Amino acid sequence: MCPSNPPREFPSPGVSYRLQLPRGIPVHYQPLVCLMFAFIDPNPLAFLLRAAQIYPDKLALVHPDVEHPVIYSYAVWTQRIQNLAYALIQAGIQPGDRVAVIAPNSPAIAEAHHGVLAARAVICPINTRLTHAEVAYILEHSGSRLIIVDHEFSHLVTGAKVPVVVTNDSGRVGDPYEEFLSTGRQFSAERGWPGLEWERDEDAAAALCYTSGTTGRPKGVITTIRGAYLAAIGNAYETGMNRDSTYLWILPMFHACGWTYPWAVTLASAAQITLRQVSYPLIWNHLLNSGVTHYCGAPTVQIGLVNAPQATRLSKPVSAIVAGSAPTAHLIEELEKEEYHPGSRIWINTYGPTTRCYDQPAWANLQLDDRAKFLARQGHSFATAVDARVVYPPKEGESLDAELVDVPKDGKTVGEIVFRGNIVMKEYFKDPEATKKAFRGAHFNTGDLAVMHPDGYIAVQDRSKDIIISGGENASSLAIEQELSSHPDVLEVSVVARPHPKWGERPMAFVILHPSHEKKWAGRHAEFADDLKKHARARLPGFACPEWVSVVDELPKTSTGKIQKVTLRKLVAKL
Amino acid sequence: MCPSNPPREFPSPGVSYRLQLPRGIPVHYQPLVCLMFAFIDPNPLAFLLRAAQIYPDKLALVHPDVEHPVIYSYAVWTQRIQNLAYALIQAGIQPGDRVAVIAPNSPAIAEAHHGVLAARAVICPINTRLTHAEVAYILEHSGSRLIIVDHEFSHLVTGAKVPVVVTNDSGRVGDPYEEFLSTGRQFSAERGWPGLEWERDEDAAAALCYTSGTTGRPKGVITTIRGAYLAAIGNAYETGMNRDSTYLWILPMFHACGWTYPWAVTLASAAQITLRQVSYPLIWNHLLNSGVTHYCGAPTVQIGLVNAPQATRLSKPVSAIVAGSAPTAHLIEELEKEEYHPGSRIWINTYGPTTRCYDQPAWANLQLDDRAKFLARQGHSFATAVDARVVYPPKEGESLDAELVDVPKDGKTVGEIVFRGNIVMKEYFKDPEATKKAFRGAHFNTGDLAVMHPDGYIAVQDRSKDIIISGGENASSLAIEQELSSHPDVLEVSVVARPHPKWGERPMAFVILHPSHEKKWAGRHAEFADDLKKHARARLPGFACPEWVSVVDELPKTSTGKIQKVTLRKLVAKL
Repeated sequence: MCPSNPPREFPSPGVSYRLQLPRGIPVHYQPLVCLMFAFIDPNPLAFLLRAAQIYPDKLALVHPDVEHPVIYSYAVWTQRIQNLAYALIQAGIQPGDRVAVIAPNSPAIAEAHHGVLAARAVICPINTRLTHAEVAYILEHSGSRLIIVDHEFSHLVTGAKVPVVVTNDSGRVGDPYEEFLSTGRQFSAERGWPGLEWERDEDAAAALCYTSGTTGRPKGVITTIRGAYLAAIGNAYETGMNRDSTYLWILPMFHACGWTYPWAVTLASAAQITLRQVSYPLIWNHLLNSGVTHYCGAPTVQIGLVNAPQATRLSKPVSAIVAGSAPTAHLIEELEKEEYHPGSRIWINTYGPTTRCYDQPAWANLQLDDRAKFLARQGHSFATAVDARVVYPPKEGESLDAELVDVPKDGKTVGEIVFRGNIVMKEYFKDPEATKKAFRGAHFNTGDLAVMHPDGYIAVQDRSKDIIISGGENASSLAIEQELSSHPDVLEVSVVARPHPKWGERPMAFVILHPSHEKKWAGRHAEFADDLKKHARARLPGFACPEWVSVVDELPKTSTGKIQKVTLRKLVAKL
Repeated sequence: MCPSNPPREFPSPGVSYRLQLPRGIPVHYQPLVCLMFAFIDPNPLAFLLRAAQIYPDKLALVHPDVEHPVIYSYAVWTQRIQNLAYALIQAGIQPGDRVAVIAPNSPAIAEAHHGVLAARAVICPINTRLTHAEVAYILEHSGSRLIIVDHEFSHLVTGAKVPVVVTNDSGRVGDPYEEFLSTGRQFSAERGWPGLEWERDEDAAAALCYTSGTTGRPKGVITTIRGAYLAAIGNAYETGMNRDSTYLWILPMFHACGWTYPWAVTLASAAQITLRQVSYPLIWNHLLNSGVTHYCGAPTVQIGLVNAPQATRLSKPVSAIVAGSAPTAHLIEELEKEEYHPGSRIWINTYGPTTRCYDQPAWANLQLDDRAKFLARQGHSFATAVDARVVYPPKEGESLDAELVDVPKDGKTVGEIVFRGNIVMKEYFKDPEATKKAFRGAHFNTGDLAVMHPDGYIAVQDRSKDIIISGGENASSLAIEQELSSHPDVLEVSVVARPHPKWGERPMAFVILHPSHEKKWAGRHAEFADDLKKHARARLPGFACPEWVSVVDELPKTSTGKIQKVTLRKLVAKL
């Protein structure tokens, strides 16, 4: 982790971290014109400027495991971001314009999360694992006016009709991205932060992130300046991140702006480490040797982490923010054993984590496996979120305005998780119909099925499309996976509905064997299937026991680590 | 701390912690009508409801050192607050009405900070140490529609023209305050939280707190729902308060709503202990035996605390939030020695702490006395505050709209601290002229004089009226006090200007001797004065050395512990 080149930009001694205020903004906030909001301050960009002001020499960002590693202090990094903002403005970017970014975790995409906002534009991070056609659709739909693309993914934007800035991720003179920053630097030096202006409408878009579009075209989720500010504060507060923290980037930033952690990290004046890829040896190296205190990851990444050959007990607890889909109790147990402190959360399509499984003091007396069952639930609303509810699904033909009705707190009745408040997305971009539908009953309808336990904890059961209707009974694929994953030889498992002549549907399980038990079952997968079914029968009602078990080498996953059940369902449809 | 009576209200098992939403509020927020704001969620009441939902059985409030101690869990306490809200509504309180509260730290005033907001009214806490005439003025000026008064202070409201609810602070049947809650309980049981409605305008007033009015009539400071929400989050985040924390009430809640800690505590789902008076034996008992993790206090209270006979080294660090006026380096040193972790802050007249002296990693290598000098400064903007600046005072005849100019970062040029943003007060109630003047240059002008150090840290020098102009030189009374307080025999000191025939003004010091050195100087105060002057000459420029030293038994203080220099100045004017 020895940088080959020293940082090149140094702020002048009298540097100001104060942007221009729009004219006429009074002291505590101001209504500018009718229906136009103007609370200037809840802007997540403010966190970066404050960190640079307080801790100019403190480590802001390290990009270690590349040919040309870089290390930036807050002062230097903030200067780069200022340069980016001016470069974007110089390139013709207007307030409200979308700027697309296609890059793995690296300085460029981290910088864009601040620099694009400083130019009063909207960041549109695009998943690097999409196809050229999918990227083209998003570029077109978002109306992006400029593209910043990592050299590894430049093939995804061939033929783009707007300017493309390629980054070689070198931080060196001659890198086109660095040259682009240089075009901003000349204005930067002259005008500084006071030459830029705060976005005056806190309800303006901060980001436009596209869904993975497993069912139809991806939808563009608009999140706001205000929402990003409050979600980032919520994340920093809930995870206890502060200036002594080091955040490791495992979750891709292109995934919904890294759940607002680009801004939570700067609020905390913490350090961040960017890794281009999810490599368990590299991650373990940093967990053990780089003072990492926090990271985010979907359950599937966490499974890989605790089962990697390098896995060992950590000497200091690390906060593992588990979200993206529901973790199994088994995973929580494994994490706890290795001294991670998992904060089980659910990812619901907008700003990132919005619920948290707050552990109760009384649970401390439970055995780890029992406690893990409680901890694997999704819990309660986050600090800055409100009103996570589980409600009955809409009745046939019911109006979208109909009042929502909560399911009873019985731990059994399955409903849909809905919520509202500051950290709900603003809208689906250019899709008022989809927005209206998602906002049934004046709440955001997540599509996640869950029960409400008597203690008020929400526990996810399934995505509505993942439920298995077997002999008229609703079987939760997640509940089945929870039980199957407790089999000692199972590494990861996914369960989907397979058509059945008698029962309508029956569960089929796809299983990856644990590496250390693979040999034991080599050539005897049918026997393993029987063993697993037996394991299931001891734990699940008959209708929820898998009818079929298929041992596989890998499971189809989205770039963000979610298992693509739609692919599995297509597979079983052909069986 | 054994409660004599069990709590009397129990929430029903199916209790809902969800208030009614105003009609037509969409999902992420809504502009209702022109120039009317409607972000429902940043309401500090939401913190209480969330805590009750997550931790119903957790300790919320303990009121120990009274004849009838009480202990409330979050569920029970939240129920009491709901009862209060209904009782207020039942008594005719309308949205926006002011409800006055005159009480020492106790359940009633803590409950009012939530219950008044739940009734969509505005809490107006009044200082218990004011005179009847002063209270009458505030009641009249605020237009309070109802008064909740502690039995010890009921004489302050005789002749009041609005309903008065007396609390005997007993928590028992027959206590008029408890009877008042009972009038709410009947509606409460029937309608619950969903029978109440969220305040739809987040810019609506949450509180109306009056200044101490040392110069003329007290002014009413209006703070908002949104501001209280963000200030409370800032306080909980900055002080690392969480559900394992216990907050000890030393700072009176009537002082600017206890710097928003009534809400910061509930955001954290922490426990709070209320003490009716500042009694050092009681406070030390709780510091040592009740698991206290956080408390707030003005420097003068902290001085009393570290010099109390009970003072001893704490076994675990306690976060001492020092604000209200600038602490001396000597005090910070004393606090550190006893394992408090002082977060030096400055109190600037609106929501509470808005800056913090963030310690730099490099300071860890300094000797404690040197480090204390750095730590006694006021530092940088708080997490949810922005743009604390030190600017030149207005020129003669300059417009209030003139652009503010920052003083150089030289640690010498004295300017005025100004700031803006979410945690600035909204206005002085019914006083547009004073508001306009306070908001010179679109920033809140604090009246606190300070320098900006080269490292960007703000250090308070003085209130503008406290500066001493000696022979044309500006001497900071605070800087003089800093040096005098380092004399080993000084407990507390205050310095004011005394007219001088030759130099215009010269400093005069009023000193309280440290109890353990009192005897040494008994009958020899003139010799002590010489000793102190000698001490000063070794540390201060000649124009800043005190010309006169007066040993006193006590210093005149406001109810919130600020030394009343105006009284000292009146005194010296007569000499």
